[in-house]
Amino acid sequence: MMPDYFERTLLEHARELFPICRSLTGEGTRKTLSYFEAYHPELERLTFASGESVYDWEVPPEWNIHDAYILHLGTGKRYAEFKKSNLHVVGYSEPCDFIIDRDQLLDRIYSLPDHPDWIPYKTSYYSRSWGFCMAHVEKQCLPLGEYHIVINSSLKPGTLEMSHAVISGSSESEIFFSSYVCHPSMANNEISGPVLLAGIMQYVKSTYTSPKYSYRFVLLPETIGSIAYLSRFAEQMKKTMIAGFNLSCVGDERGFSHLQSPYNDTLADKALLSALGSVDGYESYSFLERGSDERQYCSPSVDLPVCGFSRTLFTKFPEYHTSGDDFSVVTEDGLQGSFVVMKDLIDAFETCLYPKARCVCEPQLGKRGLFSSIGDQHEGSVVKARLDILAYCNGKNAIFDIAMLAGQDLKDVVREVKLLMDHGLIADATL
Amino acid sequence: MMPDYFERTLLEHARELFPICRSLTGEGTRKTLSYFEAYHPELERLTFASGESVYDWEVPPEWNIHDAYILHLGTGKRYAEFKKSNLHVVGYSEPCDFIIDRDQLLDRIYSLPDHPDWIPYKTSYYSRSWGFCMAHVEKQCLPLGEYHIVINSSLKPGTLEMSHAVISGSSESEIFFSSYVCHPSMANNEISGPVLLAGIMQYVKSTYTSPKYSYRFVLLPETIGSIAYLSRFAEQMKKTMIAGFNLSCVGDERGFSHLQSPYNDTLADKALLSALGSVDGYESYSFLERGSDERQYCSPSVDLPVCGFSRTLFTKFPEYHTSGDDFSVVTEDGLQGSFVVMKDLIDAFETCLYPKARCVCEPQLGKRGLFSSIGDQHEGSVVKARLDILAYCNGKNAIFDIAMLAGQDLKDVVREVKLLMDHGLIADATL
Amino acid sequence: MMPDYFERTLLEHARELFPICRSLTGEGTRKTLSYFEAYHPELERLTFASGESVYDWEVPPEWNIHDAYILHLGTGKRYAEFKKSNLHVVGYSEPCDFIIDRDQLLDRIYSLPDHPDWIPYKTSYYSRSWGFCMAHVEKQCLPLGEYHIVINSSLKPGTLEMSHAVISGSSESEIFFSSYVCHPSMANNEISGPVLLAGIMQYVKSTYTSPKYSYRFVLLPETIGSIAYLSRFAEQMKKTMIAGFNLSCVGDERGFSHLQSPYNDTLADKALLSALGSVDGYESYSFLERGSDERQYCSPSVDLPVCGFSRTLFTKFPEYHTSGDDFSVVTEDGLQGSFVVMKDLIDAFETCLYPKARCVCEPQLGKRGLFSSIGDQHEGSVVKARLDILAYCNGKNAIFDIAMLAGQDLKDVVREVKLLMDHGLIADATL
Repeated sequence: MMPDYFERTLLEHARELFPICRSLTGEGTRKTLSYFEAYHPELERLTFASGESVYDWEVPPEWNIHDAYILHLGTGKRYAEFKKSNLHVVGYSEPCDFIIDRDQLLDRIYSLPDHPDWIPYKTSYYSRSWGFCMAHVEKQCLPLGEYHIVINSSLKPGTLEMSHAVISGSSESEIFFSSYVCHPSMANNEISGPVLLAGIMQYVKSTYTSPKYSYRFVLLPETIGSIAYLSRFAEQMKKTMIAGFNLSCVGDERGFSHLQSPYNDTLADKALLSALGSVDGYESYSFLERGSDERQYCSPSVDLPVCGFSRTLFTKFPEYHTSGDDFSVVTEDGLQGSFVVMKDLIDAFETCLYPKARCVCEPQLGKRGLFSSIGDQHEGSVVKARLDILAYCNGKNAIFDIAMLAGQDLKDVVREVKLLMDHGLIADATL
Repeated sequence: MMPDYFERTLLEHARELFPICRSLTGEGTRKTLSYFEAYHPELERLTFASGESVYDWEVPPEWNIHDAYILHLGTGKRYAEFKKSNLHVVGYSEPCDFIIDRDQLLDRIYSLPDHPDWIPYKTSYYSRSWGFCMAHVEKQCLPLGEYHIVINSSLKPGTLEMSHAVISGSSESEIFFSSYVCHPSMANNEISGPVLLAGIMQYVKSTYTSPKYSYRFVLLPETIGSIAYLSRFAEQMKKTMIAGFNLSCVGDERGFSHLQSPYNDTLADKALLSALGSVDGYESYSFLERGSDERQYCSPSVDLPVCGFSRTLFTKFPEYHTSGDDFSVVTEDGLQGSFVVMKDLIDAFETCLYPKARCVCEPQLGKRGLFSSIGDQHEGSVVKARLDILAYCNGKNAIFDIAMLAGQDLKDVVREVKLLMDHGLIADATL
Repeated sequence: MMPDYFERTLLEHARELFPICRSLTGEGTRKTLSYFEAYHPELERLTFASGESVYDWEVPPEWNIHDAYILHLGTGKRYAEFKKSNLHVVGYSEPCDFIIDRDQLLDRIYSLPDHPDWIPYKTSYYSRSWGFCMAHVEKQCLPLGEYHIVINSSLKPGTLEMSHAVISGSSESEIFFSSYVCHPSMANNEISGPVLLAGIMQYVKSTYTSPKYSYRFVLLPETIGSIAYLSRFAEQMKKTMIAGFNLSCVGDERGFSHLQSPYNDTLADKALLSALGSVDGYESYSFLERGSDERQYCSPSVDLPVCGFSRTLFTKFPEYHTSGDDFSVVTEDGLQGSFVVMKDLIDAFETCLYPKARCVCEPQLGKRGLFSSIGDQHEGSVVKARLDILAYCNGKNAIFDIAMLAGQDLKDVVREVKLLMDHGLIADATL
C-alpha cells in the first residue's frame, strides 16, 4: 500500500532529505528523486547520458563523492571534512590526492569574512577544478606547513536524472510546477521546493480525483536539468501549458515573493498575485531578479507562461548559499504558508477559471436565501461582496482577475463562485 | 398649449414633487410620472402586471397606503404618523390593525441613535413584513403600555409603471439618461434625479430641434424597474446606445461624482470625466461603489456603456436615506450645477463627436483672422489652445479625448471645434 | 577633394554661420544652405516660387535686407543699427524711408524690460509691417525729436529654399533628421540644429559605408519650409519613415529634452528615450509643449513617427528668441553632448533593430568565453547584464525596448548585442 505523503509533516520530509549530498548528477540526486517517487508512483524517471546535446549545452559527466578533507601533515589535524558538512567541497571537484603548502591551499579555499561561522556553497560544473569551502574562523586557524589534499570523487560518464509526472484532467490544459534537486545540505534554497512540490501533488491527487485541468510536476537539477527537460517536452508544453510556477526558497517565514514573468502578463502571474492577496504582505519582483529555472522556461524561444514563487527570494536572505541555510531558516509554518498559497490557487483553477453570470441583470438573491434581511450589517457586506463578484463574471475575466477587480481574497472568491455555481447563477465559460 | 418645463426653476419642480409618497408601485409613483408627462408628452407610460416575470425577477404586487400611526392606548397619543412624514412606515408594510405591547412594538421600530432627529428610510419589498421608522428622540419617549398599530395599506395585484421617451436624431446612435422614481419624501436621493432628467430633456428639445443623436430618457422604480425595462428594451439598446448616464443625488452643492462603469473604459466615462474637467473638483469612484441602476445596465450580460453621475455620491452624505435629505441638502444652485455638466456634455456630442482636421499640416490661421498679431499674449494663448485641439483632431479621438489630451475645459473645446468647423478646418468624421 | 566636416569642431562651424542674417527666404538662408552643401554634396537644393500653394499656405515673397537704422535728426545719432545686430529689424519688415517723431517710433519698438540688455527677436511674415527690436536700455535713451527711419529691404517674388538628402541603405526604411535655417544671429535656437544635423550626416557617411537603413536629412525654414517640403514628400515619407527627429536648441549644456510625439508611442520616442538613458538627467515633455517642425510632421493627416530632441527645450531658457542666445549659451561640450546621443541612437539602429536570440533556452556562455569564472564579481555583473539582454531578445522588442526593459544604457546594450551577434547568439529579425 502507498504511503501517504501527508502522514509526515512537510518539515519532517525536509529534515529527512536535508543531509543527502546532491549535485547536478550522482547518487545523492538519484536518492532524493527515489524518495519522492516512493510517495508518488506517477513520477517517471528521465535520464540523459553524459555528453548528450541538449540545445546549446552538453550533459556533464556524472560526479560522485565519497569523502574529502584537508590533512595538516604537521599536526595530523583534519579540516574541511566532507563528513562533517558536504558544503566543504566545491561541487564537481575533481579527485585530489597530493601535498601542497599552506599558501597554495589558501588560494583554493572560499570563506565568508562577513559571516565567519558559515560555510559558503560553491560549484565549478563546466570547468575542471577543485576547491574547498570553509567557515572563515576555521580558515584563519590553518597552521603553517604542508597539507595532504584528499578529494575522493569521481567524474565519469553517467546520467543526468530527473522525475516528472502528468496527472491528466478533463482538459489537456496544463498547470505546471517545477522545483530543483541539485544542491547539497541547504534547507530553503534546495529541499523546501521539492518538499512543497510533492505536497502540492498530494493535494491535487487527494482533493481532485477527476481534476478539470492536467497537472505537470517536475523535479530536476537547475539550469542543465530544465534545459534537458525542455529539449524533450517544450513543444508539447507550448501547446498545453496555461500557467506554471517555479518553486524556490519556499520554507522560511519572512515574507512571500512573486518573481514576475518577463512582461508580468501571464495567467500564472495573475494567479499568484491574486493568491498572495490573502497574505500579510509580499513583494513582486521584476524578471530581472530571476535566478532559477524560470530563466529557461521564460527564455524567448520557449516563452512559457511561468512565474516564480518564493517566500524570501533567493539572494534576498543572508543565509542564501551557505551552511546558515538550515532549519533555523526553514520551518513547518514557513512551508505550510507556501502550501496554502498554492492550494488556494489550485482550488481557484479547479472551481471555475472563467466564471460567467447566467442571469441577465442581477439575480434575485432573496428567493434563494442569498440576501440579507433588513438591517443585518454583516450579511449586508457578504451580499455586497457576492454582487461585486457577479458584476465581473463576464466569462472573459479569469477568477484571478475577478478577485483583483473586486478587491477580495482569492479564497473568498472561490467560496462564493462555488456557492453561486451551486445555485445555477454562474456557469463555467472555460470548458 | 404645452407648459414649458423651464418656466419654473428646477427647485420649484422638486418642491412640488417632494411630498408625494412614492414606492416601487402605487398611486404616488403614478402621480409623479404624470407630472413629468404633462411637460413632456413624448414620455410614454409602460406598465408591467404584478406577477409578470422579468428575467430572474417577478413584478411585485401594487402597494398603496392611505394612513398609518401608532396609538398609545393609555394616553391616546399618536406616534409615527404617516400624515406627518411618509417615511414613518416601512415601505411595502402589510395592512395592520391590532394591539401589541411596548416591547413587541420596539422590535418593529427603526431609528438612528447617531442622528436622533432624523427618521430613517426602510423598505421590505420582497418579504411580507411591517414596521415603523421614527426619530430616535421620539422612540425614546414611547410610554409603557399597549399600542394600537394601524397601517391602512393594501398589497394587491396591480402594475409596475415607468415612463420613457426616445427623441430621434439623424443618427440611430443613442445617448441615454435614466433616473428613478420610487422613494417617498427625500430630496437628493429621489426627486433631484427625475427633476434634472426632465430638465435635460427640455434642453435637448429646445436647443436641438434636429439633433444629430437620438436621446433615450427613462424614469423608473430602481432595480425592479430597470430590470423590467431592460427585459423589453435591452436588445435594442445594445444596438444603438453609445453612452448612458444614471442620474442619482444630483441636487446638493457639496461636490461632483463620477461612478465608473465596470472597467472605466466607455465613451460615457470619457464624456462625463471631460465634462467634469470644468468643475472645481470631483471624485471618480470605482464601480465597486455602485448602488443605483448602473448595477443592471452594466451587468455582464447587459453590458451597456453607462456610468453614474452624482453630486455627492449616495451613501457619502450623512442625510442619505433619512428625513434629513430635504431642501437643506438640495438647492437650486446644486441642481443647476448638475444641469450645466450635462448640458456641456450634450453640446459636445451635438457639435462633433469625432472631429477630423481637414488640412494637411497646420492651417494658416492668419488668413482666416484666427491668429494673433505680434505680441498679444492673451490671443497667443487662445491660438495655442486652438492648435492644440487641431493637433488631436484625427477623426479617431472623441471630442472628450481631445479635451483631456489638450488639457482644456470641454466647453472651451466645444466652442473652438464649432469655430473651426465654421471655417471649414474640421469635418465631422462621425456620421 | 571634399572637405571633411569633422576637420573643424561643431562650435567652429556654428561660429562661422552665426553672423549671417537668415529668414524664411533670402540671401542669408541661401548662403547658409550652401555652406552645408559644400561639405555634403548629397544635399540637393529644393526651391519653391513665391506665391506657390503648399497645402493651406502660400509661399511668401523673398525678403532681403541690406541695411537698417533709426537716425535721430537732432543729434545725427544712429540707433538699432542692423550692421551691429541683425536682430534690430523685425523680420520681413517692408522698406522704409521717412521721418516720424519719437512717440510714433516707440510704438514700433520691441524691447524686454526684464532683460534690458538683450535685443528681442520678432518677425511679421504674413502681414506687411515694419518695426525695430532694441535693448531696453537703448530704447530708454532715445531723445525727443524726429527720427529718420531707414529700412533698406526688399520684398519681391523669389524663392523659398531648402536642402535635403537621402542616403540609401540596404533597407528603404528611413530614419529622418530635420532642422531649421531661418533665424538671424542666434546660437541655440538656430544654428546649433543645422550644425548638429550636418555632423550626424558626416557620422553616418564616415561610419556606415553600407548602412542598413536609409537616412533622410532636411534643412529648411521652420513651418512654411516643412509644410512645403511635406507637400512634395509626405506620401513617400509615410511609406518609408520608421523614426524621425526634429533637432532644435541642441547646443547648450543645461540638460536634455525629449519632446514627445502626440501619443508618445512611436519608435522615435523609444529610440530617443533609451538613448537619453545614458545622460545625467533629462525631461520628457508632452506634445503640448511643441514648437518646431514636429508641429507639421506630427499633424493628424501627416502623422509621421517624429519626436523632438533638444538640450534645453525652446522657451525653457531665458535667452530664447533674444540676442542673449549666443556663445555664452552654446558650447562645444553642449553640441558634443547632443552628438553623442544621436550617435548612440544611430549605432543602435545600425547594429540590430529587432534582435532575436538564436538559442532555445539560455546559451552556454562558458564555452564561448562569455561567462565569468567562480567568484569574479565584476564579470558576474557583466554576465548578468548579458543574460538580461538575451532574455528580452524575442525579435519583437526593438533594441530600444530591450535597453529600457533591462534597465541598461543603450550604448552598453549595443555593445553586447554586437558581441552576441559575433558569437552567433543573436540574429537580426528586422531585415
